[in-house]
Amino acid sequence: MALGEFALIDRFFRRPVQRAALGVGDDCALLRVRPGLQLAVSTDLLVEGRHFLSTVDPARLGHKSLAVNLSDLAASGAEPLAFTLSLALPRADEAFLAPFARGLLALADEHGIELVGGDTTAGPLTIGITVFGEVPPGEALLRSGARPGDALWVSGTLGDARLALEAFRGTVALAGEGFEQARRAMETPTPRVALGRALRGVASAAIDLSDGLLGDLGHVLARSGVGAELDEAALPRSALLAAQPAALQRTCLLAGGDDYELLFAAPESHAQGVRAAGAAAGVAVTRIGRITAEPGLVVRDAQGAALNLRGWRGFDHFAAP
Amino acid sequence: MALGEFALIDRFFRRPVQRAALGVGDDCALLRVRPGLQLAVSTDLLVEGRHFLSTVDPARLGHKSLAVNLSDLAASGAEPLAFTLSLALPRADEAFLAPFARGLLALADEHGIELVGGDTTAGPLTIGITVFGEVPPGEALLRSGARPGDALWVSGTLGDARLALEAFRGTVALAGEGFEQARRAMETPTPRVALGRALRGVASAAIDLSDGLLGDLGHVLARSGVGAELDEAALPRSALLAAQPAALQRTCLLAGGDDYELLFAAPESHAQGVRAAGAAAGVAVTRIGRITAEPGLVVRDAQGAALNLRGWRGFDHFAAP
Repeated sequence: MALGEFALIDRFFRRPVQRAALGVGDDCALLRVRPGLQLAVSTDLLVEGRHFLSTVDPARLGHKSLAVNLSDLAASGAEPLAFTLSLALPRADEAFLAPFARGLLALADEHGIELVGGDTTAGPLTIGITVFGEVPPGEALLRSGARPGDALWVSGTLGDARLALEAFRGTVALAGEGFEQARRAMETPTPRVALGRALRGVASAAIDLSDGLLGDLGHVLARSGVGAELDEAALPRSALLAAQPAALQRTCLLAGGDDYELLFAAPESHAQGVRAAGAAAGVAVTRIGRITAEPGLVVRDAQGAALNLRGWRGFDHFAAP
Repeated sequence: MALGEFALIDRFFRRPVQRAALGVGDDCALLRVRPGLQLAVSTDLLVEGRHFLSTVDPARLGHKSLAVNLSDLAASGAEPLAFTLSLALPRADEAFLAPFARGLLALADEHGIELVGGDTTAGPLTIGITVFGEVPPGEALLRSGARPGDALWVSGTLGDARLALEAFRGTVALAGEGFEQARRAMETPTPRVALGRALRGVASAAIDLSDGLLGDLGHVLARSGVGAELDEAALPRSALLAAQPAALQRTCLLAGGDDYELLFAAPESHAQGVRAAGAAAGVAVTRIGRITAEPGLVVRDAQGAALNLRGWRGFDHFAAP
């Protein structure tokens, strides 16, 4: 291979930094954190065949790789600042790297966040991103702040990414534009960064939905020491998903994974503030249940009956598929 | 597999944070950067078969995974603060994870640095670490600061890690303790963190030796816009390496890789300061050459003749082995 590691990084990824004191190309990048602010950090590793299909459009993969990390900043209410990128690649392949970088950097530009460092090596296709954001001390949205009586909310719609996965698996047939819509949901999720920021001081707890509603809500409940009741009929879904069989809708909504919407709790008295935050961020927010003092999770169907949740759980990366 | 992803992280890696505002277990970790300091960030991805052998002792692999990242902080003169860990694992295997975590966290404790977040997934064994450090503005050691007339220095000894690699490859036979010594150099390098800090205000440029002396020096020369002359006979080596054939010594010293020593430049007038920094950090420092105004790199052998460097280069992760 003629194109070496360093030339490759330069060519596709190196751009002058605007906010950082030092960007790609030295032993460390140097970031300025504004005085009085805390640094929010999150890291995600994406592995081919596990987090994305080998056939995915590289530009969409670039987008998604950063989007899932920005989604963690969103769930903390942090302002994006910078990120690092680690890439293991079977080979230094321009046909992959050029569109991958384009998709990645386009989303970075959208959020005013810059690539400050990274590492590239040969290996099975693996993408590691660490994102940095800023948040005023005490204002970060945590998983641990939900209180009995709080309302539970979710942004956007749920389940289309899982619907696409089922279509790829062949368990459901989607025609033309329906398939494309589901596929876009899976491949180019929108991190709810503006909503997360707007929810500071409004929401009592938040998490981003990456592993499925039940599993991620479970994290909030465990860390907050509370329970919850969900109203299945209230779960927001696209017209595409609403047209699918009820059992499939339930799977996609409750255990979908890859939604990258925000799930958050807020005191009932903040309902107006939640709606204002959604309006300011340009994303729908829907009340889907409430936090209870009794531990455990109850999901009620449209008739008010509690679902049997045994056997349901969040997507576990070590569980059999 | 009974042990889920989250339980696994908890069991081996979660410990209460001391310095961070928020550690493992939420969407983001929250770090406090001391007022007036910049944040130094570096990230490395280690892939099985490329950066380590499948037969490596997991405790040593844990040590090395963090060591190579701390080495980047050292090369910037930064004070270690925290790190994140991303792990792709073929399976959640306690026999691997317990010693890996032990080796990793022992080195972390040695440097007062804490694990604040991470990600774990199924996949080919891959270890991604991002480290954070603090450094006063304007005091970070950069690759770009070398000036004509500066002396070139290196810490410790070079080449033993490459010697071990050659032994594993079967191109050299090492007996008992000799093999163990070389193997320790390869598997448990010592990041020169204290030396890097002590060189702030003393060295004009620095880099850590990960890819081999020639390649890494090449980065300093390119970014500083200068050249260099190296004295091959001055390159510090262990008694073990000094007992090997001359051609093998040369390969190990000039293109070894995995040394994780600091290579740095300093004005001649700072020679005493360099020696004091080495003494304070408890590591040998050796003058190995000088920076020249003429671009290019000249390596002189013991007779003063310039080596022909054509065909030599740093270890390129996409080059054929």
